[in-house]
Amino acid sequence: MPAKKSKPLVVTMGEPAGVGPELVLQTWHQRSTLDIVPFCYIGCSAHLKNLGARLGLSIPLVRIEEVSQAGEIFSTALPVLERALPQPVTPGKPQPSHAKFITAAIDCAVDLTLQADARAMVTNPIHKKTLHEAGFSFPGHTEYLAHLAGKNSPVQSVMMLAIPGLKVVPVTVHLPLAQVSRNLTREKIISTARITARALHQDFAIPVPRLAVAALNPHAGEGGQLGREEIDIITPAVNILRTESIQIEGPFPADTLFSEDARRAYDAVLCMYHDQALIPLKTIDFYRGANVTLGLPFVRTSPDHGTAFDIAGQGTARIDSFVEALVLADQIARRRMKS
Amino acid sequence: MPAKKSKPLVVTMGEPAGVGPELVLQTWHQRSTLDIVPFCYIGCSAHLKNLGARLGLSIPLVRIEEVSQAGEIFSTALPVLERALPQPVTPGKPQPSHAKFITAAIDCAVDLTLQADARAMVTNPIHKKTLHEAGFSFPGHTEYLAHLAGKNSPVQSVMMLAIPGLKVVPVTVHLPLAQVSRNLTREKIISTARITARALHQDFAIPVPRLAVAALNPHAGEGGQLGREEIDIITPAVNILRTESIQIEGPFPADTLFSEDARRAYDAVLCMYHDQALIPLKTIDFYRGANVTLGLPFVRTSPDHGTAFDIAGQGTARIDSFVEALVLADQIARRRMKS
Repeated sequence: MPAKKSKPLVVTMGEPAGVGPELVLQTWHQRSTLDIVPFCYIGCSAHLKNLGARLGLSIPLVRIEEVSQAGEIFSTALPVLERALPQPVTPGKPQPSHAKFITAAIDCAVDLTLQADARAMVTNPIHKKTLHEAGFSFPGHTEYLAHLAGKNSPVQSVMMLAIPGLKVVPVTVHLPLAQVSRNLTREKIISTARITARALHQDFAIPVPRLAVAALNPHAGEGGQLGREEIDIITPAVNILRTESIQIEGPFPADTLFSEDARRAYDAVLCMYHDQALIPLKTIDFYRGANVTLGLPFVRTSPDHGTAFDIAGQGTARIDSFVEALVLADQIARRRMKS
Repeated sequence: MPAKKSKPLVVTMGEPAGVGPELVLQTWHQRSTLDIVPFCYIGCSAHLKNLGARLGLSIPLVRIEEVSQAGEIFSTALPVLERALPQPVTPGKPQPSHAKFITAAIDCAVDLTLQADARAMVTNPIHKKTLHEAGFSFPGHTEYLAHLAGKNSPVQSVMMLAIPGLKVVPVTVHLPLAQVSRNLTREKIISTARITARALHQDFAIPVPRLAVAALNPHAGEGGQLGREEIDIITPAVNILRTESIQIEGPFPADTLFSEDARRAYDAVLCMYHDQALIPLKTIDFYRGANVTLGLPFVRTSPDHGTAFDIAGQGTARIDSFVEALVLADQIARRRMKS
């Protein structure tokens, strides 16, 4: 796709000691074989340069002042909005002193996307523990973005994970399994389903989205014998959503929902916990999962993997998920512009 | 495969109002296209006759007195060890008055298999609620079989589910999700792993079985931030098992364990709860899952589905899982005879 006048995507640095920056280099390097639109990297050009040398990639970098320059530059160089890091980066070794530069890149991406200078943002993985040590007080990206988006009024953001042919939305996310049941409420299911149905319509151009709901317990609780959450929480929530003309079915036993046949019957599955959503997704397609944050006033996607410190700096990290995140961000932004 | 002098398999009636009996009829009907060995049905011939008529299948039945007759008969008729039911069966409507005949068929199959008159047993699905109403006091088949097997000394049985290319073993099984954590112990993981490793060697002819262990919490607990069971329970159990020369790795984040690439690295996965095992299995192959009970002094398999009352008597139930259970039972029995 030629660099057009349309706005570029912005990509955040993420944790510089993780695989994010090398995914950016590798993806730019392979741009001619990929169906992607121009993007601009918000991060440290000195680090990118060192990393490129380490990986044997000769990637021309151009520091830009305005994100609008990225479109023209992208075909010949990787555009960088400079956020210089004070110390050199060692792959696999995160440094708390880098935390404020990591969050600054996110802040910048949000500003540019909210102001519509960028069409959408793609965030590279962060390392929560290191950010927390440096005083970052949000559980993760998604919550921080909801905070930035909702400075005037509160925003509920919802995490969707997508591969071609399957979209899953966990209602509870980063919780110990033992705490899932007590954190599952009718209200949470209802608000998550509403945001999901709206996003499927607006961002994925599905005229009447069909939602399926996974049960929490084995055999969907077997009529209460294997747990009562289906009876007390999930089914009442589904019934309320039906009165709002949301097309929603369930709760179904989770093990019956993800076969090839079953997947034809819905557009997305509401899952009750993290692994219930992620196990089938990564079983079906381990490399291409991308994360979309629903419910924000701007478009944000990310790869569905972490910093992968164990392989950072080696050039072996696969770009599939990052590329999928770029593609999804572009598609969603186009649909929002049309609607 | 021609009917040989080798011992037949025995197949229990299971819940007669469920799909079990029609799977037996359909499988016998298609026997020439399937790679199965002779089996004998333990159940009610009058019911089978009515069911055959209902399904438009003309299946010759021969009531036999001795299971040894089954091998010769199987090519021309379905051999039945008669356990007559007192009332006619309505598909989809289980009757508590049938409970004692259902359990009697299981008892008979266990006796025949323990005495080595049958090479292995395949059980059709039962309906636990109806059996419990009639006074049956075991949670399910697996526990009842362990009880029958362990009349002299206690037996721990373990449920394995298998499709071609994946074997999973849930450490906890039929529990509400909220109770999984408090029921997970080092001892349970250790004893389940030992039985699994032994069975992979003895029953599946794997010289040095490789076990993978799934974590309980998302991201394998992220160093304790998302739950401590990995640190307090699972890792210590794995360490003890390693001292016993069991080849075992983990705990791994459950969502990373079931991709095609990941599956090459192990022979079976120890899962911490029901859906963690069943979601990936049924996502990969919805129809061919079979259940093998490990740790018993006889060979028992079953299809991995339930009574399916909603489609019983209609002839639409797929035989794949039942056929897989027959094939697995035969394979395991052969390997035990050799060892």
